[in-house]
Amino acid sequence: MADTHLSIRLDLANGDRIGPGKIALLEAIRSEGSISAAARRIGMSYRRAWLLVEQTNETLRQPAVATVTGGEHGGGAVVTPAGERIIELYRTIEGLARGSAHEEFRAIAMLVRRGKRRETK
Amino acid sequence: MADTHLSIRLDLANGDRIGPGKIALLEAIRSEGSISAAARRIGMSYRRAWLLVEQTNETLRQPAVATVTGGEHGGGAVVTPAGERIIELYRTIEGLARGSAHEEFRAIAMLVRRGKRRETK
Repeated sequence: MADTHLSIRLDLANGDRIGPGKIALLEAIRSEGSISAAARRIGMSYRRAWLLVEQTNETLRQPAVATVTGGEHGGGAVVTPAGERIIELYRTIEGLARGSAHEEFRAIAMLVRRGKRRETK
Repeated sequence: MADTHLSIRLDLANGDRIGPGKIALLEAIRSEGSISAAARRIGMSYRRAWLLVEQTNETLRQPAVATVTGGEHGGGAVVTPAGERIIELYRTIEGLARGSAHEEFRAIAMLVRRGKRRETK
């Protein structure tokens, strides 16, 4: 049986939010080296990816993503040390949450239908 | 300083999701005794509240909310034992996640601006 997957959202003291979308985007930028390639990889529009990058950069004291203009491929983007640290902390919290709630996940799995009702009609 | 608030989203094995909106709605239905009053209380449209109740009822083997037609106030809604159990498990997982990640929350608070940039312009 597939497991229940837990994801977390952080509502920060300044009113901003960091959730699975922003973190997945940072990870994709880290692998792909550009915002457009990262957006394609995770099935996000380029416009939304830019917006999330801007929001994340405004949330932090140091920007999470820096863009590199020019160069062979017409520019790219890199995740900064502050961006790396946010990814790491977010994934650590997620892992701690998962690790501490095994029993509750099992209990939830017992309450949940295996397939959706609309699929079994 | 206000704390970072953590909320969780459960992506279930059957493809459905349970997150903070559905749980807050169940809790409001429990206090208010009707879907319309619950929706008003948490600032959600009546239409969206109905949709989330339907989705939650389809997700679980036993419905989470039952409606009561007729009566003095023209009907109402109650949270069932299965609904109570989901609220309890969700809030327990959330509490475990918060309790296990104090250090990471502190580290994130250090990376984050106190106010939003756009407010200090």
